[in-house]
Amino acid sequence: MTQPAPVSAAALSAFVARAFVQVGMPEADAARVAWLMTEADLQGSDGHGVIRLAPYLRRIRAGGLNLRPDIRIVEERAATALLDGDNGMGHLVMSRAAEIAAAKARQCGIGWVGARLSNHAGPASLYARMALAHDMIGLYFAVGNANHLPPWGGLEMLLSTNPIAVAVPTQDEPPVVLDMATTVAAYGKVKARAQRGEMMPEGWMIDRQGQPLLDPSRAEEGFLLPIGGYKGYGLSLIVGLLAGTLNGAAMGSAVIDFNHDFQTTTNTGQALAMVDLAAFGEVAAFKQRVDVLVRELRSGPRMPQVERIWLPGEQSHAKRVAQQRDGITLAPALRAALDAVAADLGVAALA
Amino acid sequence: MTQPAPVSAAALSAFVARAFVQVGMPEADAARVAWLMTEADLQGSDGHGVIRLAPYLRRIRAGGLNLRPDIRIVEERAATALLDGDNGMGHLVMSRAAEIAAAKARQCGIGWVGARLSNHAGPASLYARMALAHDMIGLYFAVGNANHLPPWGGLEMLLSTNPIAVAVPTQDEPPVVLDMATTVAAYGKVKARAQRGEMMPEGWMIDRQGQPLLDPSRAEEGFLLPIGGYKGYGLSLIVGLLAGTLNGAAMGSAVIDFNHDFQTTTNTGQALAMVDLAAFGEVAAFKQRVDVLVRELRSGPRMPQVERIWLPGEQSHAKRVAQQRDGITLAPALRAALDAVAADLGVAALA
Repeated sequence: MTQPAPVSAAALSAFVARAFVQVGMPEADAARVAWLMTEADLQGSDGHGVIRLAPYLRRIRAGGLNLRPDIRIVEERAATALLDGDNGMGHLVMSRAAEIAAAKARQCGIGWVGARLSNHAGPASLYARMALAHDMIGLYFAVGNANHLPPWGGLEMLLSTNPIAVAVPTQDEPPVVLDMATTVAAYGKVKARAQRGEMMPEGWMIDRQGQPLLDPSRAEEGFLLPIGGYKGYGLSLIVGLLAGTLNGAAMGSAVIDFNHDFQTTTNTGQALAMVDLAAFGEVAAFKQRVDVLVRELRSGPRMPQVERIWLPGEQSHAKRVAQQRDGITLAPALRAALDAVAADLGVAALA
Repeated sequence: MTQPAPVSAAALSAFVARAFVQVGMPEADAARVAWLMTEADLQGSDGHGVIRLAPYLRRIRAGGLNLRPDIRIVEERAATALLDGDNGMGHLVMSRAAEIAAAKARQCGIGWVGARLSNHAGPASLYARMALAHDMIGLYFAVGNANHLPPWGGLEMLLSTNPIAVAVPTQDEPPVVLDMATTVAAYGKVKARAQRGEMMPEGWMIDRQGQPLLDPSRAEEGFLLPIGGYKGYGLSLIVGLLAGTLNGAAMGSAVIDFNHDFQTTTNTGQALAMVDLAAFGEVAAFKQRVDVLVRELRSGPRMPQVERIWLPGEQSHAKRVAQQRDGITLAPALRAALDAVAADLGVAALA
């Protein structure tokens, strides 16, 4: 396949929205979900962006997602809320969470919103970043939608890659945005190596004897390794307790593998907190301190062969800026998959 | 040296308090700091417990610590506060933070308290655990008191081991308590290997060319490795932004190495948040869900040679229970150091 021409974010988003509307999603919801999926691709989080359109549609058609959810607050305090997502798209549940968290943080200094009965919502950083426009720090925690690691020393996969994202405002520098799974490698990276027929480096996976597993075609025989060994196991568990168990969402053996089961309600749990910079002093002074720190970290001496010291989120930021200007480059296989969706649904294909 | 007999927590705490009173600390403050230092030893966090008495005293005598601090709120919202620690002992600043965080969480669902002009406060888990008695989840972040790692790819040590601790209440199981540095190994572990003349495993440290550094006697030529490579670098930075920069406390090159400088105000930053379980539903139901999850993780099949699957904080809990019953076992060198402090200050030695 030849490399398709880049597409504009607006065109891509409009196409995704058409597909969702065609299967019965209300227009405003379709537009919001489509835009957030497109934002994921814009910033290079393409494993969590429009590539998910086909599996989302499959889940919708299987009756595993509620297209008319009544997303509502079921518990509330001045600075906290618990949302029932009513099995709607995670993007909608978390967008609502972001609105509530920002309003509560403006009033109380911090707002923390948990959700249950949500679904996959795309890359973690999307929601942490929603705090930036409010001059707030955003913290996001989620239970992953498939279990890929056992507790440390165990063999049963009871934990997911449970990601953490934190976004911190800056003055002139790109915002500092950490978005990390609690495993060394994401499972998508393993699948990509298998497709290319390449071996994995030591440290990504182990087999059931605890030995390094290097052949990605044998991935089903082993487990992802958590970062820092038992530390990453602990971190994955804690994220799951905060995002899942606290909200009455699925954790442990209750987590539904959304790659293999398209019907069962996933009861996905997520949590989004926002901290208002103004509650801790002068906003501009904080942002300047972060800028100073960012420049200090970036401008120091480097190891041999290291071209540049990157800050968390800096490469995603550069990608977002470039693709907003030049359009989004879609992999040929993804472009073909989107064309197949268009043909299948009878909607206008991506131009 | 022969192994000294175990000492009771009460006796150890009383001795530490005597030492602090002797150098001018008010009695109530001395008792509180001494107890928290003893608690660290009780739970096995002995690198952050009474072993710190001598360096704390050295800092006090050098004028680097304020014995009569006016610890006060300088910024406040309904759910947040910023404390100025007035260069007092970190234990006092964070104890105050815990009281405020719990009161705010009771009222608002969550309370988040940051501090600047604080000091080293012992193990991170001490403060996260303070939430447990209130049926709350505790989250603690701190800027470490010496920089041991560069940004990923860099050579200048601008970041510390910045720890995270999270404590989650349970019903009948030991509480889940994660307490982790964002580096693979703590620097104290490196020093312990050097003392014993043992090599380090690959993955703890690298040299200035990025090659594995295995000889702990060459530790000054290299850096600690963050967990998960660039991920741990990002995590250390984010913890520093939340605990340090947000509060106007030291970060980056402004961090004072408290092992080498006993006079300069460290301006240590910490943050403590508490989340009230009752704001998210029935407390007992939550605790039961955590118990179920804990048992599921613990009871699954294990890798060969793995005797038991541990939950975060479970080994510290067992140690605390055992040492409360049997007394605290102090290393001979530590016991000798405490006796030297007693002789030096002219206070009654540990019996």
